[in-house]
Order: sequence, then structure tokens, then C-alpha cells
Amino acid sequence: MARATAEATAAGLAGLVVAPGPDLTYLCGYQPTAITERLTALVLSAGRRPALIVPKLERPDAEKAVGAPAVDLLDWSDGEDPYATAGPLFDPAGRYGISDNAWAMHLLGLQSALPGTVFTSLTETLPMLRAVKDAEELARLAAAGGAADAAYRSILEVAFAGRRETDVAADLGALLIQYGHSQVDFTVVGSGPNGANPHHEAGDRIIRPGDTVVLDFGGLKDGYGSDTTRTVHVGPDAPAEVRKVHDLVRLAQQTAFEAVRPGVSCQEIDRIARRVITEGGYGEYFIHRTGHGIGITTHEPPYLVEGEERPLVPGMCFSIEPGVYLPGRFGVRIEDIVTVTANGGRRFNNTPHDLGIVA
Amino acid sequence: MARATAEATAAGLAGLVVAPGPDLTYLCGYQPTAITERLTALVLSAGRRPALIVPKLERPDAEKAVGAPAVDLLDWSDGEDPYATAGPLFDPAGRYGISDNAWAMHLLGLQSALPGTVFTSLTETLPMLRAVKDAEELARLAAAGGAADAAYRSILEVAFAGRRETDVAADLGALLIQYGHSQVDFTVVGSGPNGANPHHEAGDRIIRPGDTVVLDFGGLKDGYGSDTTRTVHVGPDAPAEVRKVHDLVRLAQQTAFEAVRPGVSCQEIDRIARRVITEGGYGEYFIHRTGHGIGITTHEPPYLVEGEERPLVPGMCFSIEPGVYLPGRFGVRIEDIVTVTANGGRRFNNTPHDLGIVA
Repeated sequence: MARATAEATAAGLAGLVVAPGPDLTYLCGYQPTAITERLTALVLSAGRRPALIVPKLERPDAEKAVGAPAVDLLDWSDGEDPYATAGPLFDPAGRYGISDNAWAMHLLGLQSALPGTVFTSLTETLPMLRAVKDAEELARLAAAGGAADAAYRSILEVAFAGRRETDVAADLGALLIQYGHSQVDFTVVGSGPNGANPHHEAGDRIIRPGDTVVLDFGGLKDGYGSDTTRTVHVGPDAPAEVRKVHDLVRLAQQTAFEAVRPGVSCQEIDRIARRVITEGGYGEYFIHRTGHGIGITTHEPPYLVEGEERPLVPGMCFSIEPGVYLPGRFGVRIEDIVTVTANGGRRFNNTPHDLGIVA
Repeated sequence: MARATAEATAAGLAGLVVAPGPDLTYLCGYQPTAITERLTALVLSAGRRPALIVPKLERPDAEKAVGAPAVDLLDWSDGEDPYATAGPLFDPAGRYGISDNAWAMHLLGLQSALPGTVFTSLTETLPMLRAVKDAEELARLAAAGGAADAAYRSILEVAFAGRRETDVAADLGALLIQYGHSQVDFTVVGSGPNGANPHHEAGDRIIRPGDTVVLDFGGLKDGYGSDTTRTVHVGPDAPAEVRKVHDLVRLAQQTAFEAVRPGVSCQEIDRIARRVITEGGYGEYFIHRTGHGIGITTHEPPYLVEGEERPLVPGMCFSIEPGVYLPGRFGVRIEDIVTVTANGGRRFNNTPHDLGIVA
């Protein structure tokens, strides 16, 4: 909380408003039972003890949070105006960063109670607050990646042909749990034309011999995330164009990975991956950014996207996941989680990048 | 969507901005795979077809939504400014209601792109948008309540003494699923002093003979919610003060229920329940509002709380759940879901209100 307050001050902010979700978990270890319409918010400001505003009936839970001894707890009761309770914590002419996922109704309530106070998106002003991981966090991300790798190795042994996508997805989820995940966030199984929709999850389609299948799976292990994609083919052999596209995506992933080092901009990694695919003739079919950060969530800054000019810093962790999606036909994506070290990138996923052949 | 637009116009709004979550599910049947930092929003304005803004890579999913044929789909790609895409849909000097749970970052993006447009909380301006249920919705809520009742009857038969709260909570969850729920949202088991924290879920505490135990459980069945509380005692007999407090809470619940009829204000139901408990000498220990609405979520308007002056309308559905919480000792709460009919209240929970005795 002290570091976050200092970073806020350095960014010209009077303070931060932290909402339930990953920011609050990260900064004071408090996760309300449910995220509801009742205002819960941590207010950090320079020269003041952190203040955690909670509904009165959730106070006993908040008192048990890891970070509770370091905050002043303020409660409000049903029927009272929580924004009036929060008001005195703010500099009436100050500028505050607010968690991206704070509810709009709470932001509107604060804006109305504090007409001279300016609120700004935390991602705009302090995007990298949780982006640089310490040694303990890196160890957890590496362990989550290792567990996801074990799940991938095992899934290559199960039957694909004749089963529904949802059956293979259930196998993937069970494997993630078996290898130590506490929570499965997604198990994408995109077979044949479904693989050409990068956000397809898994459906009733029966996987057939000759299908190319995108497998994208991850979740949380000991509070930190995994997120891996491999593309497999229901064997024995894949058509020339599948191999050609797969080789191209693999080259894009490898080239982008090799460009990772401190000081390179996030958008440069995206450009490098995109250039390989464009030069290979498939640029128009790479329809998403190259990657996203990962930590206590599976989607957070830094984003490897055009326009993100901030530099890579040692300890940042993110996906590198170029893909090519041919509508109505098939898709290919290869994704590893990568961290930045002083000497370059280090992968947390280490299974082979070749086109897996499944039965 | 047409009704929502008409209600917005009648409330003096130029339109509505609907975020992923229950509002979007209700209005156009679209549930993105995940709610992320990428903008998805439905914009409703009088005299214009509804417009659904989606990230390009989620367009194939959005095209499959039940409501997709009735909306214009607009997409934006990673690296583009989604607020610039959304801008032309808005009256630059208009006032729009925005979903309570829209992300603050998206509201800030819209406020910045549209400096003359005013945004206001949907709960402030159109709180009752989803509050009045139609016949099909009432039937689903009644079925969910019936399933929760069956789970309560069954839980009375399991062993409590010597088991952890989490064990009984797991039993409750399994029973909700067994009786047709697709999703369990909460299974509170608050034994002894834990019952005095109204937001306690279930912990490692071993339940002992002589404990009073609050059971509050619910989830979704066929897309509609259940939410029931009963207080039980680990028998054979309960102390006089437990019986006294339980009788008082029961009287408060019954008195409030009997006051339900069209035209009575929401806060009046809260006041009636609170008056009974205050006159019984326990007013300071009833530390939450009397109830909340229920529908496709288990927490939504109408709220039965001081300050909510809007009247009850036939078809509204909500909890009536007074409670008394004696710190360090025990808690008592009794909760039924109730709907408003032309002639008064009708319960969706119909198990006895007496203090259940368990073993």
C-alpha cells in the first residue's frame, strides 16, 4: 500500500480508490464474500493511513483480512449514504486513480458527492501497479505454468475423434485440478471451423479425424495464473496448409519471444509477431493483440498491443500468443507465458511447439 | 429492449448503456465468455435500433445471442479506441443511464470521449427495470423456491454436531443441485458465535451440541434465483433466550409479510419489521436492511430499506429477512422470497418458521 501510494504521488495523483477484485486482494488481502451494490473501497492517499470503507455487516470479515492491521476501517449501515462516509477521505480538488473494475454506480456516487474531485482510470495512470512480480510471485507463476504443461502432455494421450469438444474441455479442466490448480478459468477446445473463432470456448461439435483443434486453458494455482495454448491435429497427418500456417505462427511466437528484453516497448513485441505473420501472407487473419499480462488474474497489464509504448521491465509476466484464424476452416494459436529477465525472456511454458498429433 | 427504451424516455433519459452482466442478459440474452477490460456495451436510444458494441474477436459469439437479430452489431479491434467507435451512438448533450456494474474504466472512457453527455446510475433512474416479473419469471422463481425448500427439509435430517460448518455447507450445495439448481451462489452455515456475523459463510468451526445455526442458501435454477434462511438448533432443546429471539424474528418476518400489498413503499416493509424487533428490545442487533429483490440475480432492486420510497407493484419479488445478531453468542435470521400480488404477498418458500431442531 505504501509503494502504491508513492507511485500514485509520482504519477501526479492525490491517491487511489481501490475496488474489490484483484487490486484490493493484491493491496490488502481482502476479498469480500461477494461483489455487490454495497460500496467497499480502499482509499490510499499520501500522508494518511489507508482507509477501508466497508458495509457494516461485512466489517467482521474485513477485520480478518491480512492487511486489516494496516488500515483504518470505516463502516456504513444500510440506509446511510456511503459516499458521504467516504467524502472526508478525499482532497476535494484532488485527482484519484480508481480501479478499472470499480462499479460505475460507485464512481457516479463519488463524482456526485465530490464535484471538484477528478477520477481517472488506474490502467491509464498506474497501469503497471501489479505488473512487476517479485521472486515469490514468479515462483508461483512458474509452478502454475508447469502444471499447465503437465495437463497438456496428458491431454495428448486422450481420444479426440468422436468426442464432443466439451468432453475434451472437461478432461482439460480435470487435469488442471489434478496438477494442482484450485480454479479453472477457461478450457477452450476449438475444433475445425470453431478454431477460427478465437473466443470460442467448447461446444457440442463432435471432433472428427482431420480436424485441427485449438486448446487454450488456464486458471489459478496457489493464487497465480496459468494460460497456455497449443494447436493439435487429429492425425495421422495434417494437410499442407495447416502445417504452413502452424509453422508461420510458431515462427511468429519464437521471433517475438526472442525480442523480449528490458526496455523494448510492449507494442514492439506485438509488431514483431504481426510482421512475421503479415510477411507470411496471413496478416489479415491475426485479429487480436499479441498478449496480456498475468498474475493474480489471467488478464491484466501489460498488454502487448499497438499503442502501448511503455517498456518491458524485469519481472513483468505476460502471454505471447499470435494466431491465425481462417473463417469457416480452422485456427492456429501458440501461447506461452513469458517473464522478462535482465538477459531476455524466460518461458513458464516449456512443452514443444510442434503441431501435436492426437487420435 | 423497446420497453426499456420507452421507460428511459419516460424517465427523461436519452437512452441506456447496458453492460455485460444481468442487465445485458435480460435485455438481449448475450453473456460474453468473460467480463474483461475490453468494452462490450448495448446502447439503447429512442428512435434508433439498439446497437451492441463488441470486441471484434467476440463478434461470432455475439452473433449467436438470442437478441442479436434485433440489434446492430458494431465491433472494434485491439488497438482501436472503443469509445470513439461508441461515440456516434450518443446524443452529445444527452443524459444516459448506465448499468450499475459497468466498469469504472469504461464510464471514464465514455465521459472523456463525450464531455457533454451525462451519465447516471441505472439504479438511480430506472431501478425497477427488471423488478416486475412476468408469469414465466414468477413460475421460475416459484420453482427455485420450491427446490430450496426441498433442500432445507433434507438438511434437517443430516448430522450437525461434530461436523465442520463447511461439511454442512457442502451438503446444502449438493442438495440444491440435486433438487435442480444449476448454480449454487451461497451456502452460509453460521454456528454459535459465527451466526452473529450476518455475512459469515462457512468455516472450519466444528458444530457443537447446543449451537444455534443460521443456514442461508441459494443459487440459480433455470436462470432464476432462490435465497432462503432458516435458523436451527442442535437439540434436543434450545435455551430460553434463543427461543425468545427466534420468536421475535419470526414475528417480525410474519408482520412484514402481512404488510405486503401494492402501493406500500419498500421502506415501509423495512420499518414494520424493524419496529417489531425494536419493540422486543433487540433493535440495535438488527444491523441490515429487511430485504432485496431477486430474479436473474440473487441481489437486485427493489431494496427494502429506509429511504426507498418507491411503491410495491404486483410482480415484484424480494426477500423478507429480518435478523438479530448477538456478538460473540449467536444469530437468528428467517428469510422467505415473497412476490406482490393484487391481494397481498405470496411466499415462494413454504417450510415451517419454527426453530428447526437438528442432531
